[in-house]
Amino acid sequence: MNFKNKRRIGIIGGSKPDRMSLHFAQKAGRLIAENGAILVCGGLGGVMEAAARGAKQVGGFTIGILPGTSLKDANPFIDVAIATGLGYSRNSLVALNSDVLIAIDGRYGTLTEIAYGCIYGKKVIGIETWKIDGIIKAKDPEEAVKQALERDIP
Amino acid sequence: MNFKNKRRIGIIGGSKPDRMSLHFAQKAGRLIAENGAILVCGGLGGVMEAAARGAKQVGGFTIGILPGTSLKDANPFIDVAIATGLGYSRNSLVALNSDVLIAIDGRYGTLTEIAYGCIYGKKVIGIETWKIDGIIKAKDPEEAVKQALERDIP
Amino acid sequence: MNFKNKRRIGIIGGSKPDRMSLHFAQKAGRLIAENGAILVCGGLGGVMEAAARGAKQVGGFTIGILPGTSLKDANPFIDVAIATGLGYSRNSLVALNSDVLIAIDGRYGTLTEIAYGCIYGKKVIGIETWKIDGIIKAKDPEEAVKQALERDIP
Amino acid sequence: MNFKNKRRIGIIGGSKPDRMSLHFAQKAGRLIAENGAILVCGGLGGVMEAAARGAKQVGGFTIGILPGTSLKDANPFIDVAIATGLGYSRNSLVALNSDVLIAIDGRYGTLTEIAYGCIYGKKVIGIETWKIDGIIKAKDPEEAVKQALERDIP
Repeated sequence: MNFKNKRRIGIIGGSKPDRMSLHFAQKAGRLIAENGAILVCGGLGGVMEAAARGAKQVGGFTIGILPGTSLKDANPFIDVAIATGLGYSRNSLVALNSDVLIAIDGRYGTLTEIAYGCIYGKKVIGIETWKIDGIIKAKDPEEAVKQALERDIP
Repeated sequence: MNFKNKRRIGIIGGSKPDRMSLHFAQKAGRLIAENGAILVCGGLGGVMEAAARGAKQVGGFTIGILPGTSLKDANPFIDVAIATGLGYSRNSLVALNSDVLIAIDGRYGTLTEIAYGCIYGKKVIGIETWKIDGIIKAKDPEEAVKQALERDIP
Repeated sequence: MNFKNKRRIGIIGGSKPDRMSLHFAQKAGRLIAENGAILVCGGLGGVMEAAARGAKQVGGFTIGILPGTSLKDANPFIDVAIATGLGYSRNSLVALNSDVLIAIDGRYGTLTEIAYGCIYGKKVIGIETWKIDGIIKAKDPEEAVKQALERDIP
Repeated sequence: MNFKNKRRIGIIGGSKPDRMSLHFAQKAGRLIAENGAILVCGGLGGVMEAAARGAKQVGGFTIGILPGTSLKDANPFIDVAIATGLGYSRNSLVALNSDVLIAIDGRYGTLTEIAYGCIYGKKVIGIETWKIDGIIKAKDPEEAVKQALERDIP
């Protein structure tokens, strides 16, 4: 399996989302994997876990970048967990390690990741999330992943 | 001089702001110092430097938390510079080390600091900055610093 | 491929080692992969690259945790590069993400990683490296990897 | 009070040292302050607290760079506490923010700080601590602080 030339799509969002956001996240994760991209996320629960579950359902590959020091904090659908021990400063790393980000729902942690994505020049796509200049709005996971796969960013 | 029981007010904002924002930042810095509070900022130019200049004009005390590894990166109005070498991950530290934050203007770096402030349960006051749920809007530095000095947060 | 239950062995060492250290690192990387473990390293050149090259020669899996913000800094033998943007603070993450560490040669950066390994309760094995209480000495890669594979640490 | 042109001397060492190390740390802190330098430390207990106590006994100025997110973790002799939320990755910051380091006793955390000091090109002086190439040995606080005050480092 080749990991290096694959697009990395980060899914960011809340750890306690509503049902629709969980559904969107799982669907987005599945679409990412079906299109041969790698899923990057924060490795914990909620949107992160739903997206990773979706990716693993179709044999995808998932990376989870954790705030704590223990790899055991990762949800069961993470292939490669990375422990940082940085607390919320790890949010910067989620953005750095994604070629493009899809935000679903989310509160202030997600907002830091959206903003880091913009700082680092990543495309940031949003479904039912913060209204921020610089986010490309998508109505559902299909549209979001389609946009995330477009290689129009240098 | 007693440093420990003083309120720490963080001023966050862009490194290339317009004239009005610079004016607001300098005024806010001066008011912070006149009220016996400590100014915390990111230590670099623009809003950060203007706020520190304002604080030092009236004998205040200023802390600048830098992204790089060199203390020489600090603007000339910083009393205690802290080098982090963390790049943009240092934005978390600016919020952590303030009791309350005042955002003036600013782009995505400022947005991470606003969001970190909200994550860490700090009061965040905004003058002509991002429109984000959780920011208390102020029309000018006088109103912002007045709000920042209110000790209604546990 | 199952990534989660595999032992992660970190190889740490200098970016400008002598020929013998490069030989040791490549051999250790190969042995790690042949024994079904994952190689973790700092992702850059020297001992890190030699170890990753060894692992990939036999179809192993490699993780490289980088100090900078660009995934392109990784050596060509890294499967999953993680950009941190933390500078030398990333050395903590190399230790955190290894179940056991093998130090080969190395200077002060390697010394921080050895010490972080000890802080985090990881077994640290050394070949021709710092003489530090807490390092288990091995005479060659065979002995080091044999020790690294022993699951005697909780 | 001028903070900017003062030499910053970091004291690093264990959180549970023996009586002699506490005595040495307090004495070193006092000498640092008496010579007009600023004390930098990790802000917690043991050697860090003893050094800060010594500095404050003679009206010195102290900076404590904390691993956690709460300023309340600082020992009572810290003037300016900096919360990092980085865990042990904060050890890099202790070295970065000192012009010169004095290690007293200490275990693996201190060893990371010694090694970071060497990485960042700081002079590192040791009293009854790790035997590491690059540490200048001193027999007592008087000799250590004398060496730390010499401005022979660019």
